[in-house]
Formats: sequence, C-alpha cells, structure tokens
Amino acid sequence: MPVSTITPPHPLSYRAFLEAFLKEDWGAGDWTTAAMPDRPVTARVVAKSDLVIAGLPVAEQVFHLADPVLKIETAVCDGDKLTAGAVVMEIRGLCRGVLMAERVMLNILQRLSGTASLTRLFVDAVAGTGARILDTRKTTPGLKVLEKYAVRCGGGFNHRINLADGILLKENHIAAAGGIAPAVASTRQSSPALLRIEVEVETLEQLAECLTLPDIDGALLDNMDEKTMCEAVAMRNSSGRNFFLEASGNLTLARAKSVAQTGVDFLSVGVLTHSAPAADLSLRI
Amino acid sequence: MPVSTITPPHPLSYRAFLEAFLKEDWGAGDWTTAAMPDRPVTARVVAKSDLVIAGLPVAEQVFHLADPVLKIETAVCDGDKLTAGAVVMEIRGLCRGVLMAERVMLNILQRLSGTASLTRLFVDAVAGTGARILDTRKTTPGLKVLEKYAVRCGGGFNHRINLADGILLKENHIAAAGGIAPAVASTRQSSPALLRIEVEVETLEQLAECLTLPDIDGALLDNMDEKTMCEAVAMRNSSGRNFFLEASGNLTLARAKSVAQTGVDFLSVGVLTHSAPAADLSLRI
Amino acid sequence: MPVSTITPPHPLSYRAFLEAFLKEDWGAGDWTTAAMPDRPVTARVVAKSDLVIAGLPVAEQVFHLADPVLKIETAVCDGDKLTAGAVVMEIRGLCRGVLMAERVMLNILQRLSGTASLTRLFVDAVAGTGARILDTRKTTPGLKVLEKYAVRCGGGFNHRINLADGILLKENHIAAAGGIAPAVASTRQSSPALLRIEVEVETLEQLAECLTLPDIDGALLDNMDEKTMCEAVAMRNSSGRNFFLEASGNLTLARAKSVAQTGVDFLSVGVLTHSAPAADLSLRI
Amino acid sequence: MPVSTITPPHPLSYRAFLEAFLKEDWGAGDWTTAAMPDRPVTARVVAKSDLVIAGLPVAEQVFHLADPVLKIETAVCDGDKLTAGAVVMEIRGLCRGVLMAERVMLNILQRLSGTASLTRLFVDAVAGTGARILDTRKTTPGLKVLEKYAVRCGGGFNHRINLADGILLKENHIAAAGGIAPAVASTRQSSPALLRIEVEVETLEQLAECLTLPDIDGALLDNMDEKTMCEAVAMRNSSGRNFFLEASGNLTLARAKSVAQTGVDFLSVGVLTHSAPAADLSLRI
Amino acid sequence: MPVSTITPPHPLSYRAFLEAFLKEDWGAGDWTTAAMPDRPVTARVVAKSDLVIAGLPVAEQVFHLADPVLKIETAVCDGDKLTAGAVVMEIRGLCRGVLMAERVMLNILQRLSGTASLTRLFVDAVAGTGARILDTRKTTPGLKVLEKYAVRCGGGFNHRINLADGILLKENHIAAAGGIAPAVASTRQSSPALLRIEVEVETLEQLAECLTLPDIDGALLDNMDEKTMCEAVAMRNSSGRNFFLEASGNLTLARAKSVAQTGVDFLSVGVLTHSAPAADLSLRI
Amino acid sequence: MPVSTITPPHPLSYRAFLEAFLKEDWGAGDWTTAAMPDRPVTARVVAKSDLVIAGLPVAEQVFHLADPVLKIETAVCDGDKLTAGAVVMEIRGLCRGVLMAERVMLNILQRLSGTASLTRLFVDAVAGTGARILDTRKTTPGLKVLEKYAVRCGGGFNHRINLADGILLKENHIAAAGGIAPAVASTRQSSPALLRIEVEVETLEQLAECLTLPDIDGALLDNMDEKTMCEAVAMRNSSGRNFFLEASGNLTLARAKSVAQTGVDFLSVGVLTHSAPAADLSLRI
Repeated sequence: MPVSTITPPHPLSYRAFLEAFLKEDWGAGDWTTAAMPDRPVTARVVAKSDLVIAGLPVAEQVFHLADPVLKIETAVCDGDKLTAGAVVMEIRGLCRGVLMAERVMLNILQRLSGTASLTRLFVDAVAGTGARILDTRKTTPGLKVLEKYAVRCGGGFNHRINLADGILLKENHIAAAGGIAPAVASTRQSSPALLRIEVEVETLEQLAECLTLPDIDGALLDNMDEKTMCEAVAMRNSSGRNFFLEASGNLTLARAKSVAQTGVDFLSVGVLTHSAPAADLSLRI
Repeated sequence: MPVSTITPPHPLSYRAFLEAFLKEDWGAGDWTTAAMPDRPVTARVVAKSDLVIAGLPVAEQVFHLADPVLKIETAVCDGDKLTAGAVVMEIRGLCRGVLMAERVMLNILQRLSGTASLTRLFVDAVAGTGARILDTRKTTPGLKVLEKYAVRCGGGFNHRINLADGILLKENHIAAAGGIAPAVASTRQSSPALLRIEVEVETLEQLAECLTLPDIDGALLDNMDEKTMCEAVAMRNSSGRNFFLEASGNLTLARAKSVAQTGVDFLSVGVLTHSAPAADLSLRI
Repeated sequence: MPVSTITPPHPLSYRAFLEAFLKEDWGAGDWTTAAMPDRPVTARVVAKSDLVIAGLPVAEQVFHLADPVLKIETAVCDGDKLTAGAVVMEIRGLCRGVLMAERVMLNILQRLSGTASLTRLFVDAVAGTGARILDTRKTTPGLKVLEKYAVRCGGGFNHRINLADGILLKENHIAAAGGIAPAVASTRQSSPALLRIEVEVETLEQLAECLTLPDIDGALLDNMDEKTMCEAVAMRNSSGRNFFLEASGNLTLARAKSVAQTGVDFLSVGVLTHSAPAADLSLRI
Repeated sequence: MPVSTITPPHPLSYRAFLEAFLKEDWGAGDWTTAAMPDRPVTARVVAKSDLVIAGLPVAEQVFHLADPVLKIETAVCDGDKLTAGAVVMEIRGLCRGVLMAERVMLNILQRLSGTASLTRLFVDAVAGTGARILDTRKTTPGLKVLEKYAVRCGGGFNHRINLADGILLKENHIAAAGGIAPAVASTRQSSPALLRIEVEVETLEQLAECLTLPDIDGALLDNMDEKTMCEAVAMRNSSGRNFFLEASGNLTLARAKSVAQTGVDFLSVGVLTHSAPAADLSLRI
Repeated sequence: MPVSTITPPHPLSYRAFLEAFLKEDWGAGDWTTAAMPDRPVTARVVAKSDLVIAGLPVAEQVFHLADPVLKIETAVCDGDKLTAGAVVMEIRGLCRGVLMAERVMLNILQRLSGTASLTRLFVDAVAGTGARILDTRKTTPGLKVLEKYAVRCGGGFNHRINLADGILLKENHIAAAGGIAPAVASTRQSSPALLRIEVEVETLEQLAECLTLPDIDGALLDNMDEKTMCEAVAMRNSSGRNFFLEASGNLTLARAKSVAQTGVDFLSVGVLTHSAPAADLSLRI
Repeated sequence: MPVSTITPPHPLSYRAFLEAFLKEDWGAGDWTTAAMPDRPVTARVVAKSDLVIAGLPVAEQVFHLADPVLKIETAVCDGDKLTAGAVVMEIRGLCRGVLMAERVMLNILQRLSGTASLTRLFVDAVAGTGARILDTRKTTPGLKVLEKYAVRCGGGFNHRINLADGILLKENHIAAAGGIAPAVASTRQSSPALLRIEVEVETLEQLAECLTLPDIDGALLDNMDEKTMCEAVAMRNSSGRNFFLEASGNLTLARAKSVAQTGVDFLSVGVLTHSAPAADLSLRI
C-alpha cells in the first residue's frame, strides 16, 4: 500500500476516543444489523466529489474496533487529491462489523477530509508567495490532534496544538502584566525553555516595541489591512532579526493571496477547523 | 435567570467529555496564563452576528470545571434568536479560570449555536406546511447528545440518537434478509418492543409493500423528487394507516419548502450536524 | 463450533466492564496462584443441574483477558437447554490464567444462565397462547445489556433497554403533565421520532382514553386481575387498532398461563433479572 | 439522623460505578421525564415486606448524582430490621432528578437489602452456637465491596474480599505444588506477611497434616457431613492450636444450625451473594 | 528466553497505567521522531553499572504499546545481578516506536531496578541471620504493585500491599479504641477472616500485653534499640507462641545486620521504595 | 493563607491520578481505620528535617478526596525553605479521613519536596553565575507535571514537559535524517510553529555547524568538560546570535559551579527527578 509522507498521530493518542465514539453511536446495540445474517461482503469507501483525503489510518482503526478480522486495503494516501468516484478503501469481511463501523468512520473521514480540502484551497491560493497557512485552536473538542493532522494533510502548518506548546501573549495577558515587556519577562522566566514567545499586536507601535525585545520570536498582526501589514514586514526586515509575522483575523479565501503578498510568514485561518464543510464520501457495499 | 422550555441533556452524560476537552486544550498547562497575576475580571460572551443560541448550560459547566467559584449569569435562553451584539452570558471572578475556559467554551457554544441557527433556517423555510425538520446520525463524534439538543433548540426534531433507539431498515439490511417482509419480521422478533420500524424505500412499489405490513411504522423516501413524493403521500393517505413519511437526500434550504409542501411528515437534513458553520461568538473581558 | 441464532452484544460494549470485574476480584494480585508453577491443564465448564446456558462469548472474553493464548472450544450454543453433567466449554493452556479467570467467569455465566433458565420457564408456561415474556429495567447495575441478552437466550423479549429507547408514561408523569393526552402530546413533541409511546393504566377508563389517542402504541395494564385484562383485550380488539397490551405486576410462574390466556400481548416479569437464582455451573480441571 | 455502627465502604471506592450505572440506565436520555415540568415533589422509599436494610449511603449518592440539591433524610440505619410499610428515606426536591435516580437506586438497594436479609436469616439460625456466617467470592461483578458490606449489615462476616487479601489453597493449587506442605511453604515465602493461610481439606487425614504445619491458620472443610465435622473439631481442639475451621458446601438454611453445632468456627454461604432474592422496596411520590 | 521464578503482576493490573504514562510523555505527539524516516534499527537496553534488574515484562509492554510488532529478546531474568555492560534486552524493528518508548521504558526500568538493587544490599547485609527484609507502604503513587514486585526481585518480602490486606494497629488506632485489647477485638470482629493482626508497640510492656492476646499475630517494634529488641525476642520465645516480630524505624544499611542479629523476624525498610536512586541503564541504537 | 508566586498545575490535570492513588493504597478498604470510632482530631504535617516544601495544593486535594469537609490551614508556601520542626499544614476534622489520606499525601509531598530541596541545592550552587538549572524528562511516570512544578518550587526551570513541546534533535535523529541540516529542515517543516529547535552536539565542529543554521535556537552540549564548554561559549558569543547553550551529562552538585562558570545558559540535571531522596515529613495527630 502507498505510504503517506505526513506522519499521523500515534493510534494510542486517539484509540480511546474512537471506542467512545462507537459506543456513542451504538448505544445499547444496533438492533437492525443484529437481526440480519452475518454474510460476507465487499465494501468500498468512495469519494463522491473532488477532495483531499485525510484520516485513512483512523478509518482503518474504526473498522478494526468493530471487527478485528476485516481485511482492509487502501488505494490512496492521506494528502492525496482525489476526484469524484475515486475508490479510497476496500473492506472485505462479514457485514455486521462493516455496517456498525460505517457511520462513525464516515463522520470522521468526511470531517477530516473536509478540513484537508479547505486547507488545500488556501494553500493553493497563496502558492508562490512563500507564505504558509496555519491553523488555530478553534478545533472540534475531542478531535484536536486529528484535525491538526488534517491541516498538515492539506499542506498547512500547525500553529500550536494546545496551550502548553507555545506562548501567545494576547491583549488580556499584556494588560494583566502591565505591558509587553513585563509580560514577556514573566513568561520567559516561568515557561519551559523550548517554547517560543509570540505577541499579538494591533498597531505598528506595538510591533516596534516587540522588535526591541530579544525574547520575542514573532508577532501576530491582529486584524490589520494589507497596507499596514506591508509596513510591518518592512519594519521586521529592517530590524535584521529572525522574527516571524503572522496575519490573523478575517482571512477569507478571497483575500488570502493579497495578504500573503504583503510578505508575512503565516496566515492563520480558524475556518479550517471550525467551519469546514464535510467532504462527500460514502460506503458502498 | 430565564429557563429554557427545551430540556438539555443531564450534565452527567457529557461532563467527562468536557473534562477531556479541557485537558486536550491545556496539554501540560497554560503557561501564558500561569505567568500572569490572577486578578478579578468581568467577562461577557457576546453574539457577533444574528444567531440562535444553544449550549448555555454546557458553557457554564466548562467555566465551572476551570474554576468552581466563577459567578455566571445568563441573560438569554437556549433556543432564543439573538441579534449581533447581544450579551449571552456574564462571568465574574479571577481571570485565570476565565482564560483557561475561553477557547473550549467558545468551540462548543459556536458549534452548537451554528447547528441551532441552521436548523432554524430550515424550520422557518417549511413553516406552515406541517412538515418537521429531522436530524441524522451524521453528528460530530463525541458531541452527539449535545448536537441533537442543538437541533431541538433550533426547532427541529430528533430522528434517533443512536442505533439502539430505532429500527431503520436500509437497502443493505433488506438485501441481507431477503426482502422487506422477512427483514421486518426478523427485527420485530428480536428488537426491544418500544422501538418503531422504518423502512428505506426507493420506489413507490416498495412503499406499497410497506403499507401492507402492519409492523412498519413509517418509510424513508430516499432521494425522490417532489412529484414522486406527492404520489407517496397520496398512497399513504388512501391506506388509512397511521404511517409516517420521511423525505431524505439532498435536502437543501432552497428545496425545503417544495418538499415540505408534498405532504411528507419529516425532512431529514444531514447538513445540520455535519456541515453547519460555527456561529460567531466571542468572549470580551 | 455451533453458532447461536441469537445475536450477542458487541464485545466493545462490555469489555471494559470485564476488565473492571477481573481487577475487582484480583485486587493487588492472586498470591495463591502466583506461588504455584504455571503448568499446562485442561479445564471444563460443566453444568451441574439442568439449565439454559447464556453468556458463552462473555465467558470466552474473560478467559482471554486473563490469558490471551488459552485455547477454548464450546460444545453448545447460548440458548441451548442443557442437562446436568453437560460439558459447556473446554479450555486448554497454562493453569494460572485459568485459575485467575475462574471465579469471575462463573459469576457471570451462572447469573446469565440463571436468568435464561427462569425466562425459559415462563416462556414454556405461556406456550401456545401467543403471549410473549418481556423483561424490565430491574437489572443488575453494570450487567444490563448482558442480562437483556440472557432474557433473549431464554426465549423472552426485551421491553426497552434503557430510558432512551422507549416512552413509558407512568402515573407520576401523567400527574405532572396534567393528564394522559397532554403527557402524550408533550413526549411525542420532544422525543426521537422512532420511539413508541406506552401508557401505564390502572383502570379500563384510562385504557379507553388511550385507545382514542393515535400517538399511543400500547398500554401497560398495571396489577389487573385476569377478568379485567379480558375486558381490556376486548376493548382493544373492538377498537380495530394495532395497539399492544402488556400485563405487569405480580406475575408469578403459577399465574403466567392464566394471564397469557386473557389475550394480552406481553407479560413483563421483573423477577427474571432481579431475583433469578444463579444456575449451577462449575469449572473442573 | 441515626448512624450505623457498621462502617460502609468509602464513596470513592464505588462512585465511578454509580455514575456508570446511571448512564447505563439513561442511555442517551430519559425522554419521558424530560417532557414533564420539573415540579417539586416529596418522595419516600418504603419497605414493602419485612427486611434488613442495607445500602442507604449508596442510595443517597445515587440521588445526589442525579440531582446534587435533593434534600434527603434517612429514618433508619443500615442493618436495621424493618417491617413492611416502614419509611426508609424521604427525598425532597424537583421531580426530574428523583425520577431519573429511582430505578438504579432501587436496583441497588433491593439487591443489597436482599443479601442483608438472607444473611440475617442464617445468622439467626446459628445464634447461640458461637459459629459465624461467612460470605464467599461468588458476588455480583462490579458490586463486590457493596455486597460484602451488605453481608456485614446482615450480621455476617467477610471471608476475603478478593484474591489479594487471603491465601486459600484449594485442590488444584495443592496438586500443582505437589502436596500441602510445599504449597504452604511456597505461598508463605512469596505472599505478603500479613495474610493468613487457609487450606481446603476433603478428609480428616488432610486436616491432620495441616495441624502439623505451623504456617497454616485454618482449614476449609469441603462438603463434609456433620459427623465428620465433629471429628474435625475434636482433632483441632486436641491440637491445642489457634486454628480455625470453616464449613463449606451445600449449606442451606435448614442445615445451618446442625452444622454450627458441630463446633466449627465459620459457615461460608455462597447463596448470600449469588442468589439472594431482591428485597421488596419501592419509591412513592 | 529465561523465565524468572518470581511471579510478576498480571499485565491487566498495570497496562492502563502504562498507556497513561506514554501519553503523559508524548503529549500531543513526538514531533522530533515524526520528522524522521521510520527506518529499521536494532536497539539494546544495557546496564551501565552493577545492578539487580527488575521490570523486564513491564519494559516489554511499554515497547509493544508503542509498536505492537517490535521483536524483543531478553537475555536475563528479573532478579538477576548484572554487571556494568550487560545487555538486558534487544529490540528489533522500526525506529519510531523504539524512540517513542525509550524514555518511559527507562524511567520505569531504572526505578524498579533501583529498588531491587537497594533491596538486595539489605538482604545481603542480613544474610545468615534468618531475618527477612520487608517493604512498607511508602511507595511511588501509581507504581505500588510494580515496586512491591521489585522488592521481591531484590530478595525482599512484602509487608502488605494496601490497607485492605492486613491489619496494623498503630498508636492512633489504639488511642481511638481505648487500648490494645479493645482495638484488637474491634478489628477482629469487623475485618475479613483471612487477615492477620499486627500491633505497633513502643515498649516491652505493650509487647507483653500483646503476647497475652491470642488474636494478635505479631508486633511491630517501633524505633527500639538493639538491646531492647533482644529482650523482645526473648519475651516472644518464652511465650511459646507463633508470633512474629518486625523491627521498624531508622533501619539503615549500616545498622541492618546488628538489628537482624537480635532475632527479630523482619526488618521493614521504607527507603527501598521512597528513596532508592535510579539504577543506571540506557538504550543504545 | 500565604500564596505562592509559583503557579501550580490546574487540579483537573492531576485529580484523576490522585483518586487512582488513593484507591491503590486503600484496596478494598482500610479495615483498621474502619474499626475505630470516627472521633474529631487535629493533625499537623511537620517537617522533620530542613527542606524546601512543594506540593501543598496537591496535599490539600488528597485530604479533600478522603473527606470533603476537613478544615485545612497551610502556614507556608510552596517554595519556602523550612527548618526541621516547622508546621506545614494543620488539618481538623474526623479521624478516618485523615488516617486514610495520610500515607498517599505524605508519599506525594515527600517526593515533591525532595525534588524541590535537591533543586534548590543546585540553584544555590550556581548562584551568581547567571546559569539556570533545568530538569529533564527523567520523571516518575504519572507525576510528570507535579515533579516539573516541584523543580520550579526549588528555583529551577523546566526544559520541556513532554515530547510535544520542544524539538530536541539527538544523535539518533540526526543519523536517521542524514545530518544536522536536513534534520533541522525536516522538523521545522513539520512541527508546530511555536516550538524551538535544540540540537545535541558532542563536538565543537557540530556546534559550529549549528551556529550557521538560523532555524536552530540552541544546543545541548553532551558530556563536555569545562574547557570545551568555555570554547563553546566563546564560539556562541562571537556568532552574535541569540542562541542558548545547555550543559548536560554527569552534572553532580560538586561540579555544578565550575560548569556554570563556563558561561553556559543552562545545566540540565536528571537526578532532580529520578533520584532525589524523599524529604522527611510526617503527620502528627
């Protein structure tokens, strides 16, 4: 089988969730399926529209939790662009396990592929500019590591996974600490050494202050227009620092390219995980 | 505080999930917040666009898991239509708990309100026809009981929650059992007595057969056009039976009214839970 | 190996409970067994009295949790009537796993077979009348899906598994809602569409009211004598409706036949799950 | 409120189980109750026959998991003998929590009181003989610590709770080790120092051997008749040792007194936990 | 492979903890390893100083949780004395699983081998005296059954694993009960029959009282000097009872032999589990 | 009560572990305590030697899990240096909860205070040099976030908590990727944007290469002597980069100062968490 070059999360990190998802969908049992004879079938997961696929190892796990002896073959890799009609996966075995896994498997695969597909649209929109597409923490509760993986499958990058793997000082933090400088000093002093510090700025004056503080690794430009972003990039460049700039706020697909062309390093896009429509996939027996 | 007339799920049924969601978002800890002084704040959850709100008791639980002594007041009820700018909830207490709850609370509240808002659009579209809007099992894994509740907040109805609380005989089941009649006999014989039996039909011939079988309570009309549905309704009406008809497949908002006008009892709409865009809400401190 | 025609619950739905049961019985470890050499043995589970067997796939799981490489053969099927001395299951492998599984395996198998055996006595008592034996929610906490399965193994039927898969309006609900009609209207309005509604009635007047309400699917006749039940059956029959009648309350084995002969559809029997004596089975090495 | 002199298990040791039991009984939600107004009620748990009550703190926990603000008063103590009609507990609060707790609470309280009541019958039967009634490991999976507590409420004693808190060398262990003496030496060598060692004996010759081994603390007399037990007691007495004798096997209520009169220290009775009929209790609103 | 004569805990008793430990160490994922190609490697666990090894089956489980298809060979047995440079275990397979298991595996193996090694030093120090080395309940939370096993691997004995498998009456208990005799009577009356009773004594007068009470099985001599212990042993011997004496308090390696020579049966040593330095082991690829 | 300036982990992140620890220590129940009357007591946690205290909020949680109504007052703050005899905490309430919490509470508090105390010795040893003391991932499984907190209480800093919050490229990773440059490129490409990258170097040549790669944030100097470290510092300084140097390997207390004086930024010390002896604390009633 083909092997993806994007490393998926370790199964231990989500298997207990998959069990919970199946139990949630089965309740006290699937009476409809239980009443049928358990005959051998061949089933196929098929793309019903163009999409970027994501979540194949997870889909396999769902089938195997429902029936450990199902035979599964995947014809494609996570991250592949598929056209409508493409066969994604073929499953052979007794029908009960297939039927009991179907809905949960599709619910996950459609969601992850929806995120990957939307990410790919943004990535393609900024192609050639050098800017990269980032996700946010606006993920579906319980699916964070999988959705972050789906973003990578779509060609995007992860900002941070959770609050523990990155310092992002926002307006509220800065206000509480009494300014950017004390907020940075305080977090650098108390946080793990391998974390970067990013500061949210709303004005170029704030950015200028950040560029004077060596403990800051980058800035989030909050809801700036393209012209202001260009100035921010110019300031950063003239500082001579290895300092990243992330554009954030209201980043639609229509606007992505013009933002990327300002020279910022990253565009962070919440819609990738909070509102991507499900990709259209089905199981055919 | 105002009290909703729609009964939410019991907190025990989702509290363990909320804890898991917070831990997922915190990872090993929120270093940014931990570095700030824990000063008293007043925060407000605010609607940033028109929406139907859903999930207030869940949002409260998230805040209380982060800090059991936060004071929370809600000004509105689940199911209320809000306009942009409306204050949804006010939280008073120390800032760390508020900041650590913020993202997970919004991720849930935006998602549930997104589903409720989209459901309301469908419900309004069919108003006056007597038809009702149903959800499906195409829910977000881990959030099924909450999303089903959000559908009710939007004025919709639940089809079944999981595989255990309803018999729906689809094409694969019927094929495995060797026909509609034996499939119905087998499920009625082996399933709990208080469950209804619904059969998926693709043709009027199949519907005719169903109407002869007293153990069937209703039929799902799969991907039929409006004209065929009208005939189905006529057949049902002339049978004199208490027998429901559910339209399913490709039910867009644009088409909802014309489908409802055929006289079917239910329209089942997968998009309510698998692709509703997040409602726009934010936390202001 | 023979295969039962009664579908058991999916192992995922009870495996975590089995692990908890083994840990409960082992505590910090089985010192007695740990002190013995781990020699190969052949063990047999044997019926020590006449019984209906139930729980074989569960018993297998218990052995495999204790030792995944034990070889297990079952000579009989769940639901079979066995006579004293019958060999139920043969296990080959090292003795430690067998000894550590023994007590929990027997505790479950004896309990489930006890329920199946008692159910069979009731089923046989009403044979020929057309009435069916139903269980109740008076199950052992933690064993509900397994005990409901044992009832099916004994030839009985499940009423509902839990509160979510059926509407049963009792006296308290009706009082709270202000009468049968509003209670029915309220539940039909807010409950999943595939659930039936049953109403508990204590008088024939209440039954008469129920028969006028098309949203009610059946009635539970609470503690009526046989004569009253006969009248209830007559009322139902003359209504021309597809409407079931369930006798409930004080249904002893002695009385089962005369109740069944009244023409009711179901007899619900709490004793099947709350007070069935354990069936006599043992493990011989 | 009255306080029992029998110490119940710590709530932490069973609370997670209670939560699981409620979720098992609720499934995706109690639709019937959810459709009713949440009006204030007063409910009483009442004994419907004579019984020994056991499990009151557990019943309270069940109510409080369903609704933390219910007011509960108990009029009796675990271990009390009640007559039919006695009020056990009074609950005041909103009806939904009461109705959602009812069935699980009763399922537990009836089961524990059933065990306590049957234990009390055995205890009374041997009154005056000096013999004590012991339980076994034939408990309901998941309820072991509670059922063991119920035995104490009935005036009985616990043998061991699980395999880790006592050494009981049975026939299979002795065979594997190559005799009583090596089996005892091996367990004493490898087991925690504060555990006693008991050996199952089928003949007086085996008992004689045990009495020569100082590391053995007592013997289980397996399926002996009363005459042989008398001889066993005589042998023990003439040995001058502090060495207990436990009668086991086929100990019916009818036979309990004559066995106790042989002078054995303990009668172990499996039926207390594997087949005690549920005590008759109900909730009246 | 060689098989240890010391029976390790059953994997079910610690597997869930191992999964939790891996998730704790991985957080949201091992980015460093994920970025590398998953090439085949051979890795060896090697002793870097002289030590007694303990925990090999646990280490295997950790590797198999990280990658179920790793091939593992162990060259030594738990309880073996190894010299610096000895190869403990060889692992063949793809590198990602090995790297992701490495740290947790070593953290456990080093800790357990540290306890086994220190225990062995105490056991060797009292060799020839007949006294035995006991552990205490001063174990690492979450690792109790494994650390107790490590003590056995070092040649020591377990006192009790938890509060449920032994009665130890300390000063506070005796004060609460109003003296040694009532405390003993009360615990014997309410505790499982297969548990021994030990009493903590600070004076020889207290020991004398204990020796008159047949329900006491032994005494803990709290912080006595060697001379007093000799007198205690003499008192016990002249009593003619099968009654053990355990020395406790400030038992350093330097003092172990002289305490053992007093004739006490046990020395209990908290340092074995609360302060044993980690044994030096590493993984070489 | 005094409030520490070091933010402890959120209770949700460890409460489930504390419950598991108590259950581990209680097993099926504390028979000794259960047999005593539950009389009111005042207890004090007292330092028995000089130490740095760490873990007070955790100790409080343990007491409250055992008995939610215990009254607790703390006289000191986490991170305080205490002298032998200092009262750490006073607990008032019924004795059973105090006795059942005692051992687990002390096991945790002694371990965390042991780590804090040892950390403080290292911190004091390097005082005035500007170097900081770092921990490692060599923590006790299950206690990682608490032990990392204890290091902060002792004045140390955290390196990374788990594999997800920092990139550390070791020899094996570099070999797999085919060199430092490709390893850095690969991790920067696939890892979350807010993580720093550190590279383990064994030679000054490797360091020189690292200093040419702008994506590297610092280097771990593996087992270098002080003279080499001085050269490394000189190289770093002359590069003009904001680039940290961490000394690692064999960092004893005796050697800490001379290493710190080389000008490295960090000393990482495994012994803080894998071999710190327990601090001496006791509970007096």
